[in-house]
Amino acid sequence: MSKSLKVVGIGNAMVDILSHVEDDFLADNGIKKGIMTLIDRDRATHLYDHIGPSMEISGGSAANTIAGLAALGIATAYVGKVKDDQLGEIFCHDLRAQGAQFDTALAPADHAAETGRCMVMVSADHERSMNTYLGVSEFLTPDDIDVAQMADTDWIYLEGYRFDGPESHAAFAKAIKACKDAGGKVSLTLSDPFCVERHRDAFRKMIKNDVDLLFCNEHEMRAMYETDDLSIALRLAAAEVETVACTTGADGAYVWQGDEEFHAHATEVQIVDVTGAGDLFAAGFLFGVVTGRDPLASGQLGCVAAGEIISHIGARPEADLTELFKKHDLL
Amino acid sequence: MSKSLKVVGIGNAMVDILSHVEDDFLADNGIKKGIMTLIDRDRATHLYDHIGPSMEISGGSAANTIAGLAALGIATAYVGKVKDDQLGEIFCHDLRAQGAQFDTALAPADHAAETGRCMVMVSADHERSMNTYLGVSEFLTPDDIDVAQMADTDWIYLEGYRFDGPESHAAFAKAIKACKDAGGKVSLTLSDPFCVERHRDAFRKMIKNDVDLLFCNEHEMRAMYETDDLSIALRLAAAEVETVACTTGADGAYVWQGDEEFHAHATEVQIVDVTGAGDLFAAGFLFGVVTGRDPLASGQLGCVAAGEIISHIGARPEADLTELFKKHDLL
Repeated sequence: MSKSLKVVGIGNAMVDILSHVEDDFLADNGIKKGIMTLIDRDRATHLYDHIGPSMEISGGSAANTIAGLAALGIATAYVGKVKDDQLGEIFCHDLRAQGAQFDTALAPADHAAETGRCMVMVSADHERSMNTYLGVSEFLTPDDIDVAQMADTDWIYLEGYRFDGPESHAAFAKAIKACKDAGGKVSLTLSDPFCVERHRDAFRKMIKNDVDLLFCNEHEMRAMYETDDLSIALRLAAAEVETVACTTGADGAYVWQGDEEFHAHATEVQIVDVTGAGDLFAAGFLFGVVTGRDPLASGQLGCVAAGEIISHIGARPEADLTELFKKHDLL
Repeated sequence: MSKSLKVVGIGNAMVDILSHVEDDFLADNGIKKGIMTLIDRDRATHLYDHIGPSMEISGGSAANTIAGLAALGIATAYVGKVKDDQLGEIFCHDLRAQGAQFDTALAPADHAAETGRCMVMVSADHERSMNTYLGVSEFLTPDDIDVAQMADTDWIYLEGYRFDGPESHAAFAKAIKACKDAGGKVSLTLSDPFCVERHRDAFRKMIKNDVDLLFCNEHEMRAMYETDDLSIALRLAAAEVETVACTTGADGAYVWQGDEEFHAHATEVQIVDVTGAGDLFAAGFLFGVVTGRDPLASGQLGCVAAGEIISHIGARPEADLTELFKKHDLL
């Protein structure tokens, strides 16, 4: 029987606070460039007091991917925790307005934490450095996983970042079981090299046992398999998982299925802000997968979607992705 | 004795919620194109439920002008009311991060209304249609006017929109008296043609008695003097106020001082979103005034600043305005 949903994403629900910074600011404030660092509320307040004027755009890695798929007309849902506050309202609105289902119970207004936010600091070289206050996104538990929903989707898409949380492993396990028992498939994104460092064993176990499609970038792949040689890491991953899709920045993406390797070229765009590149690559790739395309075509779709997101500020698509795919003769 | 501040702006403090809409959406929802319409909380909620994914950028007409001046290194302050909520925090941050003083007491967290927000709907022709929920911005009273601050600035800049409120006239009167008694000058922006319709008599009285520099666009000017002939309206205004600066879209701006007329050309830019064009024109013009430039040069500075703001989404400057002025040989 055909399922109602194509992809359900699970991750850290948050709003991005985007600002432009000088490299000196990053250095002076001890901010590591190009990666995601978890910070507490006090540090978030301190940093916010020091960054320049900002804009707010809904974010969250898996949520960005789901928003991209929804924008492409794919039946999607998202699971993540926001609070009943103004940033939570913004997050809910933007995801639903894009056409995704989003029914996770809100953390109540009297919860001690707030809706999570990610300070995205974009430097002159267009790299983004992220400092994340998880807020209530950390409090996603197995209770938030609706087994009927997980059984009613072809794919689940798990965000590696969400491994940073007390009950997240149990929530992921519940989602995986419900999905797999109903014949669904599991995709995972490694999210960030430091996230890989924090959770390598748990990731590895999940990759071997449950994951059908693994998303990563070159840095995460190298960190995962603890080697500087990307092709060795990819070969090791390909032995453990059906499909590996690894982005490599300006070089595009490499897709491995068993012994077969495919290379998708990056599209040429004027880079403004690389935030969300991996998230939208995953959206394009999953669009290819759920519409029955081969790995190379899926990789190309991923590269075009990633190219759209890095051509403007923020990690939610602005252009019509369907039109963009047509323009690249991919639809 | 030299004063500490060059310009203090008073207006409706709010956060813009920017989205792209089709013309059909405006028509179907009874939204008047190109102007600002006041809406209540219920209507705001209804509309928000129906607009697409959005981004949030601090706004408020006079606040945009003050942010522009602050970005240019001018000593500025702002007076407007936000609440102790997340949108209020965003508004406070963005203005202070730009370098403006902002010390208006926050409406407490238990206030029935919220921080004001303006739904800015940008259509394919780059025109913006604004639906504004004033929220606590309406509750600015004479108590929020610090007479010492008004006496310590060369100019005050009054936002016409703020005439929509029970105690705003009294607040403006208090600010004007304190400023003028200390030898300061008064500028006013007419804000919107429908705002002019609502408050023509009060505006007229203020223009005749108190205003030294009047900002407007062609539509507001025609509405003010109830004539279709812009040059007649401008001549009438110039008889009542020392300087009139009137923007005319692609035609740039006309500045009148007594019988003298100056024409500043618009800069050629790729228009993305016209939100804030008038606000940044005022910022550039006031920069010219407080740095001792003549009316034509001030008008040209205004046009360049307006050109920057319409080249991207949102009404707060993104480019370095000082560099932009240099590039146009205006500094």
